Amino acid sequence: MGWGDVCIYLLYLLLQMGWGDLGILGQPEKETPNLDKMAAEGMLLLDFYTANPLCSPSRAALLTGRLPIRNGFYTTNDHARNGYTPQEIVGGIPDSEVLVSELLSQAGYRNKIIGKWHLGHRPQYLPLRHGFHEWFGAPNCHFGPYDNKATPNIPVYNGSEMVGRYYEDFAISRASGESNLTQLYVSEALDFIDRQAAAGRPFFLYWAPDATHGPLYASRGFLGTSRRGLYGDVVRELDDGVGRILARLRARGLDTNTLVFFTSDNGAAMVSRTQGGSNGPFLCGKQTTFEGGMREPAIAWWPSRIQPGQISHQLSTVMDLFTTALELAGAVPPSDRVYDGTSLLPTLLNGTEVDRPVFYYRGDELMAVRYGLYKAHFWTWTNGQDERSKGIDFCRGEDIPGVTTMQQVNYTDSPLLFHLGRDPGERYSIKPKSSEYKQAMRKLEEVVASHRAGLLPGEPQFNMCDSAVMNWAPPGCEKLGRCLKGPESKPYKCPWPH
Amino acid sequence: MGWGDVCIYLLYLLLQMGWGDLGILGQPEKETPNLDKMAAEGMLLLDFYTANPLCSPSRAALLTGRLPIRNGFYTTNDHARNGYTPQEIVGGIPDSEVLVSELLSQAGYRNKIIGKWHLGHRPQYLPLRHGFHEWFGAPNCHFGPYDNKATPNIPVYNGSEMVGRYYEDFAISRASGESNLTQLYVSEALDFIDRQAAAGRPFFLYWAPDATHGPLYASRGFLGTSRRGLYGDVVRELDDGVGRILARLRARGLDTNTLVFFTSDNGAAMVSRTQGGSNGPFLCGKQTTFEGGMREPAIAWWPSRIQPGQISHQLSTVMDLFTTALELAGAVPPSDRVYDGTSLLPTLLNGTEVDRPVFYYRGDELMAVRYGLYKAHFWTWTNGQDERSKGIDFCRGEDIPGVTTMQQVNYTDSPLLFHLGRDPGERYSIKPKSSEYKQAMRKLEEVVASHRAGLLPGEPQFNMCDSAVMNWAPPGCEKLGRCLKGPESKPYKCPWPH
Repeated sequence: MGWGDVCIYLLYLLLQMGWGDLGILGQPEKETPNLDKMAAEGMLLLDFYTANPLCSPSRAALLTGRLPIRNGFYTTNDHARNGYTPQEIVGGIPDSEVLVSELLSQAGYRNKIIGKWHLGHRPQYLPLRHGFHEWFGAPNCHFGPYDNKATPNIPVYNGSEMVGRYYEDFAISRASGESNLTQLYVSEALDFIDRQAAAGRPFFLYWAPDATHGPLYASRGFLGTSRRGLYGDVVRELDDGVGRILARLRARGLDTNTLVFFTSDNGAAMVSRTQGGSNGPFLCGKQTTFEGGMREPAIAWWPSRIQPGQISHQLSTVMDLFTTALELAGAVPPSDRVYDGTSLLPTLLNGTEVDRPVFYYRGDELMAVRYGLYKAHFWTWTNGQDERSKGIDFCRGEDIPGVTTMQQVNYTDSPLLFHLGRDPGERYSIKPKSSEYKQAMRKLEEVVASHRAGLLPGEPQFNMCDSAVMNWAPPGCEKLGRCLKGPESKPYKCPWPH
Repeated sequence: MGWGDVCIYLLYLLLQMGWGDLGILGQPEKETPNLDKMAAEGMLLLDFYTANPLCSPSRAALLTGRLPIRNGFYTTNDHARNGYTPQEIVGGIPDSEVLVSELLSQAGYRNKIIGKWHLGHRPQYLPLRHGFHEWFGAPNCHFGPYDNKATPNIPVYNGSEMVGRYYEDFAISRASGESNLTQLYVSEALDFIDRQAAAGRPFFLYWAPDATHGPLYASRGFLGTSRRGLYGDVVRELDDGVGRILARLRARGLDTNTLVFFTSDNGAAMVSRTQGGSNGPFLCGKQTTFEGGMREPAIAWWPSRIQPGQISHQLSTVMDLFTTALELAGAVPPSDRVYDGTSLLPTLLNGTEVDRPVFYYRGDELMAVRYGLYKAHFWTWTNGQDERSKGIDFCRGEDIPGVTTMQQVNYTDSPLLFHLGRDPGERYSIKPKSSEYKQAMRKLEEVVASHRAGLLPGEPQFNMCDSAVMNWAPPGCEKLGRCLKGPESKPYKCPWPH
């Protein structure tokens, strides 16, 4: 089976961190010695992108190898709005989408997800229905605590059934920020690795803890250890977890046969930026299609195959992780649809770099495109004035006239063009009359035309909400006597403010 | 002689770069493999500061171990104005100041400066009058070309005499950015190391190339090699030079007896930021007292003495390089004055970290102070509206209400307080009513009171300008037949716009 004549293990570490939160990417507190070491032992990808500036659509893209506009993880309720999967969401990952977990399962892999799923919380959308054999974690973010009246607390699953709820059974102190969840997620990962090593089975482990997502939490041993506050404590704990997981791979002799890939599902959010979270030199953060929203730290680690200390500028995305995994497993995806990923193996193993575009969507709108070092914005938007009056500003402290606009501004007729080499912060747009502009835009328009010609949008999953679909009675609740009664179904169009 | 029973060589690399221009500090193009390696083999100092947000005063502070307000490298012409040493400047480093080079010379060291001096260009101020035995470089920045009528071109010196002028004898192409000056500076350094190694003499080499200072230049082999334009080409060439210099120390067997210290004299300037120059997560740049203006990349390298791979958060400044050098040479400075540096040896050799303040001056005004992780701004100012209308904005793209102010704003009664751990970008000021604010400010006020009590300002050197003092007839011009006739003396108060 698989690639060459050995079977290759796959471990994807998806930690929500900004580009600048890694020591090796400039964070002045240098709190990620394990990730930094992982980069030194492997390849650091410096032009790596997520598929969307927020979590649900990015995760769906990672697992389907397709842009959210194709796999349905977007909304048409309003123009260019970010949607995701809160408890009220009716939709989720459609059965018609084929996940990397399903294809790997067919190829004989044992698959586990640890942490936040975020591809829909209703029974038909859960991970064990989509190719994963094991799951420890939750379907949604750990918002709360709720009173279980207007809103139920989010369930935590082990496998196909809930084993409790956040705040009730899995404590998160909103006062101190203490929770041992990340430690649970680490020990689940170590246990899974041990079991697969003992069984000699190929595996795919998708480690997706969510402690850097608000409300932030860390376990007692890490609380108060960072000079930048709770966010730094969380980063230190996640980094420590990465170190322990890689050490376990080594201890079990699996390291030379395992591709480990670390990245993030979106840039540091405004709320984490107030605690030292950083998108490095990049503009704005989560929720925006500026570089700070979608350019991600990325490290590929595979001792013996990936030469240590490499740096790559290959333009690449989370969707490439789908195609890369399939190539390593010798699995072939259905040929009836378009994929946005390509295999990263030529880059990882031979340092190859080829020209490719990256598309930046916000909801149903193609906001921007990058090709080579040029990025053109067709639309700009930070977030609306009404949100800003509540203190929400996804570009706080950054004000670039005509770029960080509070209204949705349509630049389609004369896109805002930046050179991300000499201007990684998207501050100095290139004059439309220059020959550089004309030459770059010709190529970018060509790339967009080709993208649009092949685009068949999926059925939008984020249009309808309904309080009746919340996590009132998740599978397994009856065994625990923990089922709640929800309200009558009353579907409504989800309001997406940004 | 000296420290312990061996003599210690000293090599200070002063390259004008922003904090975020190093690969290891997050620059996405990763163009500094030699500096990154130097950090991996030595100690990276993450809370290291220059003494002033621009070049002349910073360099004077490095060599005197004293703040510009003490050594005279400031102006009182207007309030809180940055001054430096252009050709018109009448002042320079006073004879009453004792430079590290003088003290090292008395201790038997052979001293050389390569590159930009910037402590005054009139004969009495030149390096060979202040303890250096050798010099190859120029007294001022390489602005030009001039027509030698209203303004003479800047002379290049070898020793105590000029050997030519920029643009005339030492070519810098303003069109292509080509110049081989950095290559000359590298070969001068290698030659000096070879000679001292052969003579078995202790030495102090102060390598201060200025290619990252506008107008930027690089040699042919580096032009066009960076993806971020000319600024990146320059960074690559300087980094390559550092690699060659360290390799030469190794080849001559001097590395284990040489303390090499790399830092910068100010943050990346606005003009370089348009070409990808970066101050990482820090606010604004050169000319300002925000972190982007004064927090500098810093690496200490001393194989066998400094353990590899260390990181230090010791608050420290360029003035510490004065005291550190003297301790290593066993030299003692005059006891009749205050020094602002302390020896870094406990930090470098034992990882010690102690609490110390950092003072941020702009001209004659103490704009801000840091102690621990707290920084209080007593005054804020980016630059004036009149300058901004000419396109000059030292905080371009950054707009933090009440912080990046276009007017000089006096916050003395209620200083703006930031926590640089959770808010390295100085975006979220701490509420004056909070107990955190009161506690932090108590300490900061105490530190400032103590600083003020011991402060005896020096005679300001940047108050008077005069076209007659320009580089019309530098020492040595007569031998070359290159003396120019200047105008009659007509002193005037120097206008300092920012």
